[in-house]
Amino acid sequence: MSIMIVYPNGKTHRWVEALHAVDPALKVEVWPEISDPGKVSFALCWNQPPGVLRQFPNLKCISSLGAGVEHLLGDATRPASVPLTRLVDDDLKQFMAEYVMLGILEHLRRFEDYRRQQKLGKWARMQSRRISTMGVGLMGFGEIGRYVGYKLWDFGFKVHAWTRTPKQTDHLRVYSGIGEFDEFLKHADILVCLLPLTPETQNILNAKTFSRLPANAYLINVGRGSHLVEDDLLAALDSGRLSGALLDVFREEPLPQHHPFWRHGKITITPHVASVTNPESVCTQIVENYRRALAGMPLLNPVNAERGY
Amino acid sequence: MSIMIVYPNGKTHRWVEALHAVDPALKVEVWPEISDPGKVSFALCWNQPPGVLRQFPNLKCISSLGAGVEHLLGDATRPASVPLTRLVDDDLKQFMAEYVMLGILEHLRRFEDYRRQQKLGKWARMQSRRISTMGVGLMGFGEIGRYVGYKLWDFGFKVHAWTRTPKQTDHLRVYSGIGEFDEFLKHADILVCLLPLTPETQNILNAKTFSRLPANAYLINVGRGSHLVEDDLLAALDSGRLSGALLDVFREEPLPQHHPFWRHGKITITPHVASVTNPESVCTQIVENYRRALAGMPLLNPVNAERGY
Repeated sequence: MSIMIVYPNGKTHRWVEALHAVDPALKVEVWPEISDPGKVSFALCWNQPPGVLRQFPNLKCISSLGAGVEHLLGDATRPASVPLTRLVDDDLKQFMAEYVMLGILEHLRRFEDYRRQQKLGKWARMQSRRISTMGVGLMGFGEIGRYVGYKLWDFGFKVHAWTRTPKQTDHLRVYSGIGEFDEFLKHADILVCLLPLTPETQNILNAKTFSRLPANAYLINVGRGSHLVEDDLLAALDSGRLSGALLDVFREEPLPQHHPFWRHGKITITPHVASVTNPESVCTQIVENYRRALAGMPLLNPVNAERGY
Repeated sequence: MSIMIVYPNGKTHRWVEALHAVDPALKVEVWPEISDPGKVSFALCWNQPPGVLRQFPNLKCISSLGAGVEHLLGDATRPASVPLTRLVDDDLKQFMAEYVMLGILEHLRRFEDYRRQQKLGKWARMQSRRISTMGVGLMGFGEIGRYVGYKLWDFGFKVHAWTRTPKQTDHLRVYSGIGEFDEFLKHADILVCLLPLTPETQNILNAKTFSRLPANAYLINVGRGSHLVEDDLLAALDSGRLSGALLDVFREEPLPQHHPFWRHGKITITPHVASVTNPESVCTQIVENYRRALAGMPLLNPVNAERGY
């Protein structure tokens, strides 16, 4: 029995070390160097090539190496009867909350404009709005969305959330379903996409969505690149419909050299760093699921393939 | 009886409007256009020229237009028997918390480096530390410092504070007095100066202070320009003792054109915008103090001239 890591171009040695830190006796193998495919019980995957997973007939569980699972659900060659799990982790949530907080404050307090002025040796104050008058609209209110939402609310933002199914919360107003989407958007001076990527959420950041936002709204996409219709964003920025965008995820990563986003004055790009799984933080959870899978016990953080996350 | 505003080059019309919004019947005059100096009972001051205040024989109270009062305490021509007050305001605290949060996160999450990479079309991830491992050291733990400290602590930072006199708090470790200063500095990966400017705190950000900080510490000065020994900062940045600095206040404001800070690659400059008094937010407090001063009642937010704030 072994755990297999399938992570092309990833820093797999860090994952091997972190798993051994939890249990030095674990047999951990890194694809494609697998001694006996029949003995692999547990697969840890990120961007696995199609066709790989079906080569292992005795898998008891396939785990994502992150919170997202679209790389697993979208892999038609995956053995469909093997249960899927994902990672739920405090560090992932905290990193995401930091990134979103930073992105919003940087925009509101005009730090990029001040840096531009600094280069010119220019001393000039600019107005900035009180955050208690700013609506932050969170698309997605699952494990990460809730954490981010409450951190923003604690800090003083007016937070609204939009989610697939109705949810009860204190303090925050949660809108649900497509029927309440337009109403939700009206309150989103800052629109933050934290959705999982599913057939329903693909291309959800489009011209129609942007047209429902308050004037000068700002977009932060930390979901997936395929949530965004890129040409619609460019049009909304160029027409002044949106005041700017902070993008951490892209349809193609790394973002291709020739892509117009790189040089657009109203777009800030980060290279998919908003929230990166920290192996040291999640390997206890992974080893626990490995043991549960071997024992036939219920798994932590199971994925509902129907729902898409 | 009238309220007089002494604020050279300030947007005094906003203050007049905000005072009248609280009470349209108030008589408000803007220095130097004063009809009868003997009838001025209350002075609201920011950067008043020396010699002005002694021209008003019937002042009952002199109020700062902000949280700081060094412009009043440092004015030797001020009538010393007239009580001083300052502004304590939730908006001022919140603005400061936003600025400090933004300054810390921007540094930790390397947003300026990512912007630099974007200009080059470069996709490369950089490491960033978990904030639970970062010590934030707040110099100053008064009205504003406490608010900032708890906001940072709520968000996940390890916060330490240093103050003149011992204070009891939950959660945060508060060091006090010169005897505990070095111990405090050891924990300050990020050092934030929120002190009032007094003879004891002037020049407190100096080479010796910097030498006690952890390696690669980062400085945020939102106190006053005179807290900082400028040449010591330049030396500490150039030697690598400090990793960078975010400065909002300067010995001379606007920062002179020829000043080396403008073009230093490790210094970020903002033009004294961290926390700016919002007239609409504080005029109720000012009018209340005006009435109390006329009635001989105890004033809100009195300044202790001995203590210096």
